[in-house]
Amino acid sequence: MSGFSGVFPYLVSPVAPDGAVLEGELRRLVDHLIAAGVHGLTPLGSTGEFAYLDAAQRRRIVEIVVDQTRGRVPVVAGVAATTTADAVRQAKDYAAIGVDGILAIMEAYFPVSEAGVVAYFTAIADATPLPVVLYTNPNFQRSDLSLPAIETLSRHDRIVLIKDASTNTGRLLSILNRCEGRLGVFAASAHIPAAVMLIGGKGWMAGPACAIPRESVRLYDLCRAGKWDAAMALQRVLWRVNELFAAHSLAACIKGALQIQGFAVGEPVPPQAPLSAEGRAAVEKALALAARALAEAPQA
Amino acid sequence: MSGFSGVFPYLVSPVAPDGAVLEGELRRLVDHLIAAGVHGLTPLGSTGEFAYLDAAQRRRIVEIVVDQTRGRVPVVAGVAATTTADAVRQAKDYAAIGVDGILAIMEAYFPVSEAGVVAYFTAIADATPLPVVLYTNPNFQRSDLSLPAIETLSRHDRIVLIKDASTNTGRLLSILNRCEGRLGVFAASAHIPAAVMLIGGKGWMAGPACAIPRESVRLYDLCRAGKWDAAMALQRVLWRVNELFAAHSLAACIKGALQIQGFAVGEPVPPQAPLSAEGRAAVEKALALAARALAEAPQA
Amino acid sequence: MSGFSGVFPYLVSPVAPDGAVLEGELRRLVDHLIAAGVHGLTPLGSTGEFAYLDAAQRRRIVEIVVDQTRGRVPVVAGVAATTTADAVRQAKDYAAIGVDGILAIMEAYFPVSEAGVVAYFTAIADATPLPVVLYTNPNFQRSDLSLPAIETLSRHDRIVLIKDASTNTGRLLSILNRCEGRLGVFAASAHIPAAVMLIGGKGWMAGPACAIPRESVRLYDLCRAGKWDAAMALQRVLWRVNELFAAHSLAACIKGALQIQGFAVGEPVPPQAPLSAEGRAAVEKALALAARALAEAPQA
Amino acid sequence: MSGFSGVFPYLVSPVAPDGAVLEGELRRLVDHLIAAGVHGLTPLGSTGEFAYLDAAQRRRIVEIVVDQTRGRVPVVAGVAATTTADAVRQAKDYAAIGVDGILAIMEAYFPVSEAGVVAYFTAIADATPLPVVLYTNPNFQRSDLSLPAIETLSRHDRIVLIKDASTNTGRLLSILNRCEGRLGVFAASAHIPAAVMLIGGKGWMAGPACAIPRESVRLYDLCRAGKWDAAMALQRVLWRVNELFAAHSLAACIKGALQIQGFAVGEPVPPQAPLSAEGRAAVEKALALAARALAEAPQA
Repeated sequence: MSGFSGVFPYLVSPVAPDGAVLEGELRRLVDHLIAAGVHGLTPLGSTGEFAYLDAAQRRRIVEIVVDQTRGRVPVVAGVAATTTADAVRQAKDYAAIGVDGILAIMEAYFPVSEAGVVAYFTAIADATPLPVVLYTNPNFQRSDLSLPAIETLSRHDRIVLIKDASTNTGRLLSILNRCEGRLGVFAASAHIPAAVMLIGGKGWMAGPACAIPRESVRLYDLCRAGKWDAAMALQRVLWRVNELFAAHSLAACIKGALQIQGFAVGEPVPPQAPLSAEGRAAVEKALALAARALAEAPQA
Repeated sequence: MSGFSGVFPYLVSPVAPDGAVLEGELRRLVDHLIAAGVHGLTPLGSTGEFAYLDAAQRRRIVEIVVDQTRGRVPVVAGVAATTTADAVRQAKDYAAIGVDGILAIMEAYFPVSEAGVVAYFTAIADATPLPVVLYTNPNFQRSDLSLPAIETLSRHDRIVLIKDASTNTGRLLSILNRCEGRLGVFAASAHIPAAVMLIGGKGWMAGPACAIPRESVRLYDLCRAGKWDAAMALQRVLWRVNELFAAHSLAACIKGALQIQGFAVGEPVPPQAPLSAEGRAAVEKALALAARALAEAPQA
Repeated sequence: MSGFSGVFPYLVSPVAPDGAVLEGELRRLVDHLIAAGVHGLTPLGSTGEFAYLDAAQRRRIVEIVVDQTRGRVPVVAGVAATTTADAVRQAKDYAAIGVDGILAIMEAYFPVSEAGVVAYFTAIADATPLPVVLYTNPNFQRSDLSLPAIETLSRHDRIVLIKDASTNTGRLLSILNRCEGRLGVFAASAHIPAAVMLIGGKGWMAGPACAIPRESVRLYDLCRAGKWDAAMALQRVLWRVNELFAAHSLAACIKGALQIQGFAVGEPVPPQAPLSAEGRAAVEKALALAARALAEAPQA
Repeated sequence: MSGFSGVFPYLVSPVAPDGAVLEGELRRLVDHLIAAGVHGLTPLGSTGEFAYLDAAQRRRIVEIVVDQTRGRVPVVAGVAATTTADAVRQAKDYAAIGVDGILAIMEAYFPVSEAGVVAYFTAIADATPLPVVLYTNPNFQRSDLSLPAIETLSRHDRIVLIKDASTNTGRLLSILNRCEGRLGVFAASAHIPAAVMLIGGKGWMAGPACAIPRESVRLYDLCRAGKWDAAMALQRVLWRVNELFAAHSLAACIKGALQIQGFAVGEPVPPQAPLSAEGRAAVEKALALAARALAEAPQA
């Protein structure tokens, strides 16, 4: 298994209304998150609006993130496509740019058979020498990864982790039981991170960590240290950020949170809507509560 | 809040093919579970096939369970109806028989408005002086309890607990956050009990506890003692029973498990099917693994 | 195949707040509908709130309808249960009362296997010498009837018709093609009756026909006469009643429509809500438009 | 309203395993369909695998179809995107190439508000002087077009038609009633074309018409002539092709049907699977039955 573990924020994709990647803000965000102690960076996840960017925009974002990170933490970039050929092309391209791992996402318009799903992810893992994180999100994707498909894929040498974005935490324990140490589990924003750490998770890949990186890292450290009471005291407050993230559009919520924090990351790509005024007020309040909870939390 | 906490097995409803309640086996089961250390008993939950029994059968089951329990542990009986009038009638009737609490379930054929849902549960809570546990199961019920409805209901003096049978563990933390100590949370079989205990749950009401009562009680005690590593070692094995419970029909699975253990509890009411031979083999194996894990688990 | 064909209104179930069946209004309604020319009567369909009535109420309604009808048109009563035993009991009981056919409905709390579904409906058909109409409603029932299950059931001598309440009109043509003359098709309120008549349907069983019986019979006659242009001119207007029926609660909508027409049929059983003031205004307008369209429609 | 009416086959997109558009076969297919009497051509619908082609492939397909058609029938090309900017770019591009109309499709990864949906389609209609056909497919798209959204959009001068791919035929009549002559309705393969013609439809846009063009045109003509009995005799047989289309993957089914007819259009883009041997046998049989039904059908 890969050594990836800890808090991997899903990066937002700062783009101007004309589609230009806002390079400066993206570089500032990368530095900010690394300074906050995150263990890795994940451009082009859901929060990164991969489905709303063209190939050139996606490539440029990966280049900037890899360049700015300079190996300080691993960069695991999202590869998402409807066709196997496009996914393989992206994986090779991002590997050449210098990412440390691939977050493999399957888009679909028509349903795909289980054999087709396995073939798709296998082709990505075969395309480069990099470790691969399976991504499954039954809310937004058409083809969910079944437990048997996950078990099959876990036998591939380079498929080492799974990031599950269902709300079904029990499913994560089923994956851990079935894949017997071959597949590590990352939580998503729809799971309670502390609960996933309890059952044996390796960390989380999620949009909220982009907005509350220090709080997320402290929570991770408390869980790792087995200080569960302190972890839960912090977790209970941080969960409000995840709730907002679920109630509002993902990209809108995190872009809004970053704007509040002084990052001019722009708005979600239309026809997605920006964060509403009501949503912004709720996010501001949640950020303030999170900061206070961090101040009150013990060191791990 | 009510003092209910711990492991409350959902009792199966042993009935003969002609519909007669198998009184002797039900009394044996009650004694067996109490001897195993469970903290309460819940007749007429999902596992108890409430939807497949008529009013006389349901009433008889409550009478037998209350009579046999003799106050050793609290009995929280399921009240389930499509109409408010029928639910109120059941609640009063079971209170007169001597139950210690009501598990309030809403059946529906047509969608019901949120106001109608709140009115239904409020009417049950108003009907008797007993504490009420809200039951929500989005998989099998038509009208789910929304978070705002739950918050409203939590302000009723006698609505003190909720048993949530979604697979969404994060929702439980949202309920705990929203209802600020007014509403305790019980896990269901679709949640990982240890994870629910971590986030502040009071125990679990679930069918599997009927089949693995000693193991469930030990798991509860380890969680309460904060021995999370030992709890998770046991939990990982017990989870297999919950997985079977989800894969096979609930009543079939638990009735089959009890038959393996020497209880002649009969089969699920047709057209529900009995446990298949393959299911029975899987249950036997899971029970053996659970027993071994209990033997290896430390005391709390 | 049975000779049932034409317009079979789903009767509402007039009950007082204390649960008493409003016998006088029900008898008036039966006479009113027969005078309007309907071809049969169907108590205890969805619109008849079968899921909100107890066994005694259901039985009483069947008795009154059979007694009042006096053989003028066939009475096809709804039999609905979760258990096979209860369904068989109802079927025998209603046959003894004197109904002319059974509308067989399967309720379910847990999923039932296809074999279980087939066994349930077969048991009903075996229970009496009466013709049986299969009822399938994927919106409100948990176990839909698959095409293979329907084909199997169509080979039973007494299963002669199906009433499909999906919105999928193509499925009706698939059923007709598959069952090659063995199974007649009735439309439900979610289908356009004229379209179902075009593809070979035998009529419709639906709640709206209880509110607009004369209009429904004229539409049926125009379709039967092949006067499709006149049929569609009427159909376009009558469709508004079906739209309201889908937008509002079924029983509330039809009970409200009948109240407007002078029938004191009471309200839906709580926690179902009565028709809103806004809904009532919409129903009044739709009834007026329907009456005018009938006046303008040619004879068949 | 635009004058578009009749049978508009969804063209498959013939591509080689290396992604090259198979120009020769596409030109042959265009000629073949026009010779069969179709009233228009629709490249880049669902059957055209728009979600599995990149921008260059899509553009090339539009160029070839427009060039080969030489104005003999209108070409209505699919514009599909997640972002408004990309959709507008495609629409302008295809207009410059010379298409006669736009089939406007909204892809989505995240849910979009109703205002966002309306803005997206309005932007496409504003982008060019061409008539626009709204496309809605609740099976495969994330954001369905609600009736109020459709009504709003129908007030745009250039939004003149809707192609609805739900299975809900009643919804089409609701659209016709609501939009009072401002919006024409095309059926999709999930509706019975004859039923849609009966209720006032203008024709159909669908994949099966690519495989059975002559049969489809005859059916259209019989409906237009009001020869409903003959139309239904033909329709009953042709429906089997639609059933196969629904049971198998759309592109696989139609590409397989065309291969049987001698068009080397290649396979669906992986990870989509080709038509299975069993599917191919079923398609062969359905094509033979369709041809025989055409031979037996009267002229309109």
